[in-house]
Order: sequence, then structure tokens, then C-alpha cells
Amino acid sequence: MFELNRTAIQQSIRLWLEEDIGNGDITSLTTIPSEQHSKAIIHVKEAGIIAGLPVAETVFAVIDPSLRFTAKVTEGSFVEKGTILAEVTGNTRNILLGERLALNLMQRLSGIATRTHQYVEALQGTKVRLVDTRKTTPGHRLLEKYAVRVGGGHNHRFGLYDAVMIKDNHIKAAGGVAIAIDAARKSIPHTMKIEVEVENFLQLQEALNSGPDIIMLDNMLPVDMRKAVDIIKNKSPHILVEASGTVTLETIQGIAASGVDVISVGRLTYSVQALDISLDLNEQKETQR
Amino acid sequence: MFELNRTAIQQSIRLWLEEDIGNGDITSLTTIPSEQHSKAIIHVKEAGIIAGLPVAETVFAVIDPSLRFTAKVTEGSFVEKGTILAEVTGNTRNILLGERLALNLMQRLSGIATRTHQYVEALQGTKVRLVDTRKTTPGHRLLEKYAVRVGGGHNHRFGLYDAVMIKDNHIKAAGGVAIAIDAARKSIPHTMKIEVEVENFLQLQEALNSGPDIIMLDNMLPVDMRKAVDIIKNKSPHILVEASGTVTLETIQGIAASGVDVISVGRLTYSVQALDISLDLNEQKETQR
Amino acid sequence: MFELNRTAIQQSIRLWLEEDIGNGDITSLTTIPSEQHSKAIIHVKEAGIIAGLPVAETVFAVIDPSLRFTAKVTEGSFVEKGTILAEVTGNTRNILLGERLALNLMQRLSGIATRTHQYVEALQGTKVRLVDTRKTTPGHRLLEKYAVRVGGGHNHRFGLYDAVMIKDNHIKAAGGVAIAIDAARKSIPHTMKIEVEVENFLQLQEALNSGPDIIMLDNMLPVDMRKAVDIIKNKSPHILVEASGTVTLETIQGIAASGVDVISVGRLTYSVQALDISLDLNEQKETQR
Amino acid sequence: MFELNRTAIQQSIRLWLEEDIGNGDITSLTTIPSEQHSKAIIHVKEAGIIAGLPVAETVFAVIDPSLRFTAKVTEGSFVEKGTILAEVTGNTRNILLGERLALNLMQRLSGIATRTHQYVEALQGTKVRLVDTRKTTPGHRLLEKYAVRVGGGHNHRFGLYDAVMIKDNHIKAAGGVAIAIDAARKSIPHTMKIEVEVENFLQLQEALNSGPDIIMLDNMLPVDMRKAVDIIKNKSPHILVEASGTVTLETIQGIAASGVDVISVGRLTYSVQALDISLDLNEQKETQR
Amino acid sequence: MFELNRTAIQQSIRLWLEEDIGNGDITSLTTIPSEQHSKAIIHVKEAGIIAGLPVAETVFAVIDPSLRFTAKVTEGSFVEKGTILAEVTGNTRNILLGERLALNLMQRLSGIATRTHQYVEALQGTKVRLVDTRKTTPGHRLLEKYAVRVGGGHNHRFGLYDAVMIKDNHIKAAGGVAIAIDAARKSIPHTMKIEVEVENFLQLQEALNSGPDIIMLDNMLPVDMRKAVDIIKNKSPHILVEASGTVTLETIQGIAASGVDVISVGRLTYSVQALDISLDLNEQKETQR
Amino acid sequence: MFELNRTAIQQSIRLWLEEDIGNGDITSLTTIPSEQHSKAIIHVKEAGIIAGLPVAETVFAVIDPSLRFTAKVTEGSFVEKGTILAEVTGNTRNILLGERLALNLMQRLSGIATRTHQYVEALQGTKVRLVDTRKTTPGHRLLEKYAVRVGGGHNHRFGLYDAVMIKDNHIKAAGGVAIAIDAARKSIPHTMKIEVEVENFLQLQEALNSGPDIIMLDNMLPVDMRKAVDIIKNKSPHILVEASGTVTLETIQGIAASGVDVISVGRLTYSVQALDISLDLNEQKETQR
Repeated sequence: MFELNRTAIQQSIRLWLEEDIGNGDITSLTTIPSEQHSKAIIHVKEAGIIAGLPVAETVFAVIDPSLRFTAKVTEGSFVEKGTILAEVTGNTRNILLGERLALNLMQRLSGIATRTHQYVEALQGTKVRLVDTRKTTPGHRLLEKYAVRVGGGHNHRFGLYDAVMIKDNHIKAAGGVAIAIDAARKSIPHTMKIEVEVENFLQLQEALNSGPDIIMLDNMLPVDMRKAVDIIKNKSPHILVEASGTVTLETIQGIAASGVDVISVGRLTYSVQALDISLDLNEQKETQR
Repeated sequence: MFELNRTAIQQSIRLWLEEDIGNGDITSLTTIPSEQHSKAIIHVKEAGIIAGLPVAETVFAVIDPSLRFTAKVTEGSFVEKGTILAEVTGNTRNILLGERLALNLMQRLSGIATRTHQYVEALQGTKVRLVDTRKTTPGHRLLEKYAVRVGGGHNHRFGLYDAVMIKDNHIKAAGGVAIAIDAARKSIPHTMKIEVEVENFLQLQEALNSGPDIIMLDNMLPVDMRKAVDIIKNKSPHILVEASGTVTLETIQGIAASGVDVISVGRLTYSVQALDISLDLNEQKETQR
Repeated sequence: MFELNRTAIQQSIRLWLEEDIGNGDITSLTTIPSEQHSKAIIHVKEAGIIAGLPVAETVFAVIDPSLRFTAKVTEGSFVEKGTILAEVTGNTRNILLGERLALNLMQRLSGIATRTHQYVEALQGTKVRLVDTRKTTPGHRLLEKYAVRVGGGHNHRFGLYDAVMIKDNHIKAAGGVAIAIDAARKSIPHTMKIEVEVENFLQLQEALNSGPDIIMLDNMLPVDMRKAVDIIKNKSPHILVEASGTVTLETIQGIAASGVDVISVGRLTYSVQALDISLDLNEQKETQR
Repeated sequence: MFELNRTAIQQSIRLWLEEDIGNGDITSLTTIPSEQHSKAIIHVKEAGIIAGLPVAETVFAVIDPSLRFTAKVTEGSFVEKGTILAEVTGNTRNILLGERLALNLMQRLSGIATRTHQYVEALQGTKVRLVDTRKTTPGHRLLEKYAVRVGGGHNHRFGLYDAVMIKDNHIKAAGGVAIAIDAARKSIPHTMKIEVEVENFLQLQEALNSGPDIIMLDNMLPVDMRKAVDIIKNKSPHILVEASGTVTLETIQGIAASGVDVISVGRLTYSVQALDISLDLNEQKETQR
Repeated sequence: MFELNRTAIQQSIRLWLEEDIGNGDITSLTTIPSEQHSKAIIHVKEAGIIAGLPVAETVFAVIDPSLRFTAKVTEGSFVEKGTILAEVTGNTRNILLGERLALNLMQRLSGIATRTHQYVEALQGTKVRLVDTRKTTPGHRLLEKYAVRVGGGHNHRFGLYDAVMIKDNHIKAAGGVAIAIDAARKSIPHTMKIEVEVENFLQLQEALNSGPDIIMLDNMLPVDMRKAVDIIKNKSPHILVEASGTVTLETIQGIAASGVDVISVGRLTYSVQALDISLDLNEQKETQR
Repeated sequence: MFELNRTAIQQSIRLWLEEDIGNGDITSLTTIPSEQHSKAIIHVKEAGIIAGLPVAETVFAVIDPSLRFTAKVTEGSFVEKGTILAEVTGNTRNILLGERLALNLMQRLSGIATRTHQYVEALQGTKVRLVDTRKTTPGHRLLEKYAVRVGGGHNHRFGLYDAVMIKDNHIKAAGGVAIAIDAARKSIPHTMKIEVEVENFLQLQEALNSGPDIIMLDNMLPVDMRKAVDIIKNKSPHILVEASGTVTLETIQGIAASGVDVISVGRLTYSVQALDISLDLNEQKETQR
């Protein structure tokens, strides 16, 4: 699995803290002594796959580099309800400053990893790769795609800039599948792939003639997918085949059996069911300086 | 209902577009003529309350002020599956640049408004105010709190800066309910309210003696809530009483019957079930300049 | 007193340094050896209340974390002319880089604290709270409101976002006192207060009927204020009464005697008389590395 | 007079609006209809020189380009108490959004222009140039130096980057007047001037031998200044002589008579006495769209 | 050719203008009437391929949207010495504000396009694609890669994020060619390509076994390249072969003859020879408002 | 020589890294163990003057403060082909993250210093000062002007804001040389110089009468320059004379002999010939934490 680029999320974390804190946490500033130190524990209230420990660590580090964050479980591990995930020690006010953001992030990322893991389990024993989509929460794409990886999935392209993806709207606007593929190939860097979405066998044939790198079968029946896979692999074995369209835990095995290489699932990051995680202060001590 | 502050979200929209677009939408740039114009429709694939039309409008306006966005339904209205929500006309590439972000936002906000509306319906006939929490998606607080209002709910505080909210962790750190309330009152502006969370009657009594503006009953049984409301209103009728803690559509009416003024529900914005919304290009024309 | 949120001002300090420094302090860069170290003292040239020591410390820390700033008096203390307020030791060039900004800030903040203290003294023996207004220097609101607290005063709201304040222009635009209060109450979070400004007894009566949280008596004579306070406290003892309008050191005791809870004074932060503070290099040593 | 660079202050205005507005002006958003339009007048409550009309215009334009701002007096003119300075028409909420910032800025800038004008008047009939210093409000330097020009004064350098200014601290750190001047001359662009501050005749002689472009006489008696001017002009007539140090309206004429070319006065921008300016809504109309 | 994403460069243009303008163009502000309008022409002082007209247009539009920029030649066309490239009309000060930046950019971009064109000409009659590298000027990558396209070349990857490129340093760090390719393939999105650099036939064989998408032959002799191409195409005809390493106008045809698909040339953007371009004011008129 | 202001370039370095890295260096993230450490050497492939060592150091420090950068030669020294310039040790991935940017910058800056040195050598034995122009790469002005100093040259003004420079376009727009000089003198700070460009003796005479600080002789023949220098120095010996216009290594000595004080050369920073510099990983070790 490739890891999270922590630097890339520090700027987001700063903005998100600003959203919550504004001029200051007026409650802590007025009720808690400025030099009090505490130990807090982060624990989970339902079972699931944990993702986001390095993210929470970064939240606390951005607020106050002297806070100490100690993970008690491994990123990506499955934990039972009640497990302690991490400890945070240091200035009480600063721990509470980060509490809500750290939890909001861990809850969502663990929810994504947990769901992804369910899909990955369903694909156990096949060679099919489970991937996400661009249906991520605005501003959270890097994090959510990371959570998919933590859950055992893989990523589709990161944005509009790192691969060509010709969809129905492009085909309409360009005037046809082949026109679109050819136009893209002529202009894009040779280091970039072209994926094209086809909805039927006519489009598939047209696509095949223009030689894309990936063909996505959109909303086809498994039986048609199998047929499409045969046609594609016969003609160009190096072309990857991706299945897409309202994939659920119930339907995914049938789709995998059709021989596709990749299945993309929007709901890995869409309508996320967050995992319930809490932070509790455990001990306080009046402080040093 | 108070309206969305559109200016406040333009900067977020710019960042979110940058996240998706990077150096450019390589697919549109290479497959669609630069001067082609289209008409696109945005339609909904399941029934619900629509929120986010002015947000989507702002997305397209930020990308290209010459795009024309025409809402076909009213913000906050209930629509059936298949309803056309809006039309967008203008440069094809620019419509597609905004497609994913506009949909990601509308889907989420409509999901929040739809769920909020269900809770508001459940409170029909009572005087209880339904409010949200700070369990919002990082970076999306203003928008999600707006969607709650569109759905008929009200807002709790916006962040750590605009009201004092003394919770269990603060009580531990401060050394008691009364100490915390008194310390806050002494320092905060007279224009600001103090809310305190109590878990039992001992804490309630202590809180009452210090005169907070709002008392939140955390995770109490409805029967205890009723008792607490009586105690509070007898002593200080102007104090607002808020109920909180795993409120569901099943339990909310029982809680409302206890006489509380306000019920706060985390799941209005947490584990949102997005509403399925799509954009389709309808017509293209070769273009003018 | 609640403390300054130091993090919140670092970004401002960066901008202010940039304003002064631009491409670099060409004088120091060309006349002072890059590795020279010095000790500098900051001293005051007139008596007053000192505010801004942690601000000056932050200025030097932003420039160069290895500079050592040692306060020699306590924030908020009264000092005589000639007192040494702090020492700064470290790289000479970097001390001089921060000199002007640190002094400009300390001079202004100490001026505010000194004036506030005079008003607070005048209120000695009463229960009246002295508060500031939004007539602060653009970009300096957090700092100036902090200086008011250092001088013994309290703060009014921080901005347009954290309390409702219905003034004459709003009353005109809304169509009346009661209409405005009712409209605000219906929409704002239950965690937020409503203050209304009244100029006469007619408006006062109208306001009282709609139940605001705070009533501000604008430019009334002390005798009328006393009457207004009686009316308000009789009807709703928990409503706070604020007096406002060209309050001076001469008039404030008369106003306080009227029984109001709060007096707001624009000139705490408006037309500030700065306190004269200087920085002198004391010793240099050629340097280590 | 050279004019204000309006573009350069738009970014500051955005930050300052954000400071005041945060998530939104909750009072206007909840009490004033979103489409109401009004006419507002800006008037002055005491006599003085007006500065800042283009700044106020920019404030309203940044908020809402459709607001119409019409100045009723000329920038830099002297006005009597009660004069209407400008009218603003357009969306009521947006006028009120800008009210406080526009007034805060105009009040301060007009205060600076008014005081500057008093000093300029005192220099009437001499050829001496009145200039400001770097004792400006952090973040407001461009504006305050502009207000000095509006009042008839001139500017000293803009920051640490656009001229060399060797002061007592630099002389100590460099090891002498001559060493400092020579070091600077060797390195700085030939397009840049060197000013040196001298406190006595020994330093003056040393400075003269190294050929600075400007010599500043710091805190000298007028009689000594006259002597210094003679020495300097005899040796190098093109060197400018600047007087500095606790200049007041009482002492400035005596200083001018000494023959110096330039007098710099910190208090033009330091301890500013703001001019009292107000905004009143005059008419409302229900609106178009 | 795919076009420049103009929006993506506006932020850079703002920063670059700020670098040059700072507090303002003191020369124009003090010597040119604020409302004067002029017509300026941009002309070229040596023959070459013109690139950057839309960039210059954007520079002037960012400064002042009312400036009118009219291109007189087509982007990418070859022009003789003395040709007028564009006219700019509008406020004189604003034209001069943009002069230096617009010229600096056009000169560099036209230099790149001109050199690229020479290499493209040398490849006339072959099917080989000429591409650039990441040896671009920091902050100018998008623009310089665009200029390469204007000159008839193509682009290599845009940065470290949009393709895997395994070079000698990665091979050392990973422990071998195959290990590196396999590790990347396992983790990266299926939408992304892997390119590997090989220096000899041993590495080539190892690479081939792991199935990269592109093989780059680094600094090989043409005769060895031909051999390598044969080996690669025999085994996996869909793998692209790229040649790299001190390619010059003299050697490029020999390299192309070896059968490679792509030749990458660092000096397209490295050590650029700028094209000499000037701006002259032609007419002034006193102005309108 | 005055040194580089390192702080001033950190923000640029951050932007430039972002340009190259985007979401992350996908190659290193997937092929190199996250905790591997290496030693890398930076060496030069052709002889020249080295500039940019502190810049490269800053690049690596911005990426990862724990990387250790050790310069092996002195900034500004002449080195032979093959010389090791610096070592970098630390996390392998982070070394490679900075490789391209550090090299791109050092190559360009060393190219500038090398060329500047050639011109400075040509002026050996004269008192003439060699200076640069504003023909720098957008975004790189501070760095390129620093490289000129490293090469032994001096700087002209830094931008439009720190000196008045009246050129042909300003003379046209202002209506004459004298009008322009007088207008500028009246308004600008007394701390700022005025330079005027003259093309003939008529303009020279006009300029002399208005007393600028610097006169630039634009594109004159050496014989005319000598005549001009005589006229200027006779009348006002303190006025500096600058020569400009297509100066080359061949013509510069003739120009210097004319008696001018300063020669400005655009091509010091324009059409830079970069110096070839490389980074190689030398050793890896599996790592600590």
C-alpha cells in the first residue's frame, strides 16, 4: 500500500481548525488553567477497521508540536468495540482544541476503510482489483483515497489531471467514441493512459479500434460483461477492463466472475457510515513551566 | 430561515475545484472543441428535499461567470425521482469542469436536508426546536448547517468561538460544574451565552446555582428529562433546556414530550446518506465568438 | 481575564513583517555582520499599564525562533517611566528586523490598556462592567480587545457573527424594533443573544415586549437611564442593560449610578494615545556558530 | 501628490472584512430582507481634512460591485461639521456589511490628514518638506502614508527595503558611522540612497567624510541644527538635511528656521486623533430582481 | 495541440506582478496623468516562432480588465524581425505596469517554441514524438510545457504525481529494476503508467520481464538503441520506447532512425535563448471617464 | 556583498515544490521504503562559478528539517568539472523529492554567476560597476539578483517601487524629460533616487537642468558616451552615469573607457546558460526510528 503524504494535508488541517476555532475556544480559554496538562484516550464505540491515526496525529501536531500522540493499534487493523486507539498527552486546552477535528476525521476515514474492507472480502479469491471513484467529499479526496487503500482497496485516478477518462458526456460533445480517443491520444503525454466508458457493443467495437488503455463497461449485465471481456482480451490482451455502475456487496461477486480486471465502486466514499469514536480526558496535573 | 452567505464559500469552492482539476481537465481539453457550447440538465434519481442550488450556481459562476444556471425547482422543496432541478448552459468544457463538484455538493446537502426534514416532521405539533451539532464534515460546516436550515432545522453554535459550551471534559479539567460556569461568566463578553452539559441531578443542581443560559441534558431517559425540565423551569424559566444523545426518529417524540426546548441531533450531518443527482449534456452547438 | 490566543495573531504578524521588510532590511544586511549577536533592552519612556509583552515575544519568535525574549515586568502591571520591560538576545540583524513592529504594537496596546485602566478606576466600587466596541483598528481587533482586558475591561461582541445587535439602521431597514427582534429570534441559534439599541421609551417598551437578552440605552441622560433601568428590571430582571454614547471619564460615574449593568466606550480603542517605548542595543559579541 | 495604489489595498480590505464579518452579519441576515435596497449618507460630525474616500469606495466595491458610491466632497478638502461626504446606494445588507470598516478607515485617515495639515500650515512660507516615519499602524502603512500626502505632507521611506537608514543601533552594531556608510555603499544598488542619523558634531564629521545622501540630525537644539546645516551645505551642497525628534506644532517653526530641508514627525501617524464620521440609512425600497 | 489552461496561471501572474510592482510603480504614478490612455504595440526584434500571446493577454487582463489586447499574429506562427505581434490600448499607467512581465514571459516562451520547432523540423518525415522533461524553470512548468506544444513538441509527465518514472536513483534505492517495477504496479492506480530508465541490456531484460508501459534508453549509442528497440518490440509491441540523454540538433536524426517512439530533450526548456520582444507606446490621449 | 534573505524565498520554494510534487512523488512512495536513509552527492559536470548552495540547502530544509546538507565548496568559488559541491544525507524519499528543484535552481543561478563573472573580469582594473536589469525570470528576481552579486556584479533597482526610472515610454507619456523629472521629484520621498534615460544630447541637456540622480545613456556610441560623461560631470559631479544597450563581452571595455560609472547588462539574467549539475545517491541504509 502506498502511504499518506502527510505534508499535503497540513494546509487542509490548518483551514479546518480555523473553521472550528475562529478567534479561539472560548470555553477552554475561560474554564481551564493555561498550563494544565492532561492525558486523553481515544477509544472506539463500535467494531471496524481503523484509518486515520496519522491524520489525527497530524491534527494535534499542527496545533501544538509538544503534544504527544501514541497510537495503541496499527493503522488498518480491525478492532472491537471499546478498544483504545491512541493516547494524547500534553496541554489540556490544546488537546481539546483538536478533539472534534481529529474525531470527525478518524470517524469518517475508519468508516470508509471498514466499508472498503467488506468489498475486498467479497472479492477474496479473485484477481479483481477494487477501486474508488471521484465521488469523494470536496476537500477530502487525498484522505478518502488513502482510507480506501487502508481498507485494502486501490485508487482510480486522483483527478481530472492525471488520466484521460472519456465518459458519455465527452462522447456526446466530441461526436463519437473514436473521435474522442484519437483526439486525446494525439495530444496527451505518452506517459498518460486513456480510459473510455462504453455502454454497448457498438461503442465497445468503436473503442477497440482506437486502442484505449482501459475500457470501462458501464452498467452492463454480468453476462454482457463476460462477452465484452472476451472480445477485448481476444483483440488486445493488455487492455484493462473495468466494471462500473451500482455495484453492491450483493452483486460484486457476480461481476467479478465476468473476468473484468477492476471494479469501481462509488459508495466506498459516498454516503459514508462513520465509525463512532470518542476522546476522554483521563488525568490532569497542574503544570510545569 | 436565514440564508447562505455565498461569499463565504467561494474560497472553499476555489480550493475544491483545484483539488479536482489540478493542471486542467485533460479529457475535455483534448476531446472537446474549446468554443463548443452546450445545455446540460441536472436531475435527481430519487425523491427528497433539494438543498444546494445556490451552491451549485456558485460553483459554475466561479469557473466561468458566463455560464448560465437556471434553477427549475425552489431550494428546500420536496421533489420526486426524475425531476429536473436546474439547467446549465454555456461553454461545454466549463460545464464539465464543474459537474463533479456541483453534484458532490448538492448530493450531500440534499441528503442532509432530507434527513433533517424527517426529524422536523416527527416534531410536528410540538414547540421543540431541532438543532445540529459540530459533528460536521471538516471544511463544510457553513454549508451543512445551511442544509439543516433548508430542511427546517435550526443551528447550534457555529464553532468554539461563538458560545461557551461546558462539556464533561471541561468539567473534569476545571474541577467542577460551578467552577467552570463562574470562571466563564467572569471573562466572556456579556453578549455571549453559556451552555452546560449535565449528566445527573447532582450536576443539574450545581449548574442551576450558577445560572447558565442553557442546560443540556446528556443521554438522560425521557422520564428523567421531564423531571429535570420541571426543576429548571421552576427555578429559572428563562433558561433553555436542550436534550442530546443518540436521538433517533424512533425516540425523538418521547424526548420532545418531556418538555425540553431544543433537541440536538448529531446524525443530521454525520453519516449522511447522499441523494443521487446527475448531470447530462443535452445539446451542443458550434460556437460564436 | 481570558488570555490572548497567540496562534491567531501569527499570520497577522507575518503580514505586518512583510509590510515593513519587503525584500529585506537593506541597512542591516549591508552594515551588520551576519553572525553578530547582541542584547537589547526594551524600556518605557512614560508611566502606564503595559500590554503586549506576549505579542512582542511572538514577533521575535516568528522572525527567528532562536531569539530569546525575557519579560522583566508582568503583563498588565503599572510601570514608571524608565522601567525596563524586556530583554531580547540573539542575532543582531534579527533583533532589529523585529524592533519597529514590536514597538509599534506594544506602544498601541499599552496605550489602550492604560486608558482602559483609567475608566475601570472610575468605576471602582460599582458592579458595572466596562466594555469596548467594534471601533477597533482594522486587522487589530483581537489584539485591541485583548488590551482592553489587560487594562481591566471586558469585551463586547467580537464581530458581526457572534451576537445579534439591532441598531438604528437595522430598525429602519426592518420596519420596527419588534419586527426585528422577532425575526432574529426565529432564525438564530438558541446559543446566541440578541441586543437591541433603543433611543427612547417608546422603543424601550416595544423592545421589552419582544424579549431581547440585552437592551442598550443609546445617548440617554442619566436620569432617563435610571428610569429605563427600573422599567426593564421590573419586567425582566435577567435582561442586561447597557449604556452607550460619548462616555468620558467625567460622565462615567454618573452613568454608572443609573444602575446599568454595562457601559460601552468607543474611545478605549479609538484615537488611542500610544505609550512611548524604545529598544536599545546594549552589547554585541562576535559570534559562534 | 502621488495617488493611492488602490489594487494594493484590496487584499487588506478582504482580510479586514473577514475579521469583522466571519461567517456572516447575523443581524442583517435575519432582520433585513435580502433584496431590500437603500440609500445611505456618510457625514462628518466635526470639522477637518477628509481622506479616505477612495478607500471607502473600495470597501463597498469589494463587498458588492453593484453598490454605487458617490463622493460629495473632494479628497483632501477641508469640511465643516455636518457635511455630507458621500452617498452609497444599493443592497441594504451589503451597505451595512461595509459600514464599520469604511468608517473606521475614513476616521483614522482623515485624522491623519487633518493633523498633517496643521503641521504643513505651520511650515507655510518655508521650503521645508514635512515627512512621516515608519511609526505607522501595522498593516496600514500604505494607507497612512497616503493620508499624510492628502494632508499636504510627504513620505519618508516605505520600509526597510527601499532606502538605507543608519540609526544609532546600526552604528553601535557596525562599529562606527563611517564603517557603516562605507559598507552599505559598497553593496547596495547605485539607485538607492543612504541616510545616516547623527547625534553630535563628531558623528556629523565622520558621516560627512563618507558621503551619505541624507544626514538626519537627531534631537539637536535648533541652534546646533543651524550650525550643522552650515557645515554640511558648505562641504556637500547636494546632501539633504533632515531634522527629527519630538517635533511639535510649537517647535516646528524654530526647527525649520535652522535651514534643514526636511522635518520628520512621528506623530503624524502615531497616536492619531480620529475624525468622527457616521453612516445613516436614509431610504429603503423593496426590490427588483 | 491541447491548449493552455489560462485560469491555472492567473495566480502565478498575480505573484509575479507583485514581485515587480510592490507598493506601486512610483515612476508612472508620479509622471503620468492617472486618466491618460495610450495605444502600445508589441513587436519582435528577431525572427522566430511566437508563443505566449494568451499569456500576455492574461497579464494585462489581471492588471486591468478594461485594457484591450489585440493579437496581430497567430499563436505558434513564424514571424520575421520587426513584425507587430499585438496592440494594447487603455490606461497608460496600467499598460506600463504589465510591460516588463508580459515581455519577460513572451520572450522566454517564444524562445522555447522556436527551439522546439527546430527539433521538430529535424524529425520531419519520421513518426517520432519529441517531448520535454522536468528541467523547467521553477514556477513556470505549465507555461513552458505549453510553449513546447506551441513549437510542435509534446509533453512528458507534468510532475512527480502523474506517472511513475523509475530512474537510476530509484533503482539503487529500491534494490533493482524488477523490484521497483513490481512494487509500483502493485500500489499505483490502474490508470497510471510506469516508465523505467535502463542503461544497458541487463537492465533492459530485467525491465521487460516486469512489464513496464514505457522503457527509456538512457544515453545509449544509436546502434544499441536499435538493438534495444528490436528486443522490446519483439516481446511487447505495445511498450513505448523513449530515447534520452544529451540529444542535440546534430544527433537527433540518428537517434530517430533507431526506431524509438519518443525522444526527450532537456534543452527545450533548459538554457533557453529568449526571443527579443519590445513594447512601445504609440499614441496618448487625454481621457474620458 | 550583501547576502540572500533566505526567509524571503521559502514561500517560493514551497510553491515550486508543490508544482513538482502535487499529491506526492508516486515513484518514491511506491518503490522506496519509507524509513530508508541515504547519502547523496551533488556534483558539477562543467567548470564555473557556483551559486545557490544556500538555496539548495533551503529546498531540502523546507521538505524535511532533518535532512543534513553539507556544502563542500564555498558559495561563489570557481570549480572544475567533476567537483563535489555538497552532500545531502537523510530520508531517501525526501532527498529525491528535492532533487529536481534544487538542481534546477543551482544550475540556473550558477549559470548567472558564471556569466556575470566573465563581465566582471572584463572590467578588471576599471572602477566601473557592473549591474543587472529587471529582465529577470518572473518569480526569481531576488534569487537572480543574488546570483549576480555572487558573480561579482551589483544590482540595479529591485522593482518598480524602489527607485524612479524614467524611460522613453514615460517621457512620451509625460510630455518631456524635464516635465517627468520635475513631477517625480515633487512627489517622491526624499529618500528615493531618480534615474532618467536619455538617447541624445538634447535630452541630456534637458535632463541635466532638472537634476536627476542618475543619467542613463541608452544605446550611445562610446565616443558619444565619453562626451556625455564630460558634460555631466562638469555640471554635476555627484550625478552617476550609467551606460546601457546591447552590451557584450566584446564591447564592454570600450564602454567602460568612456568614463561611465555603471554599466547595466540585461543578458546577465536573460537567456541564461545553465551550468550542468547532478545528484547521485551513494549509499543507503535501512533505518532507525
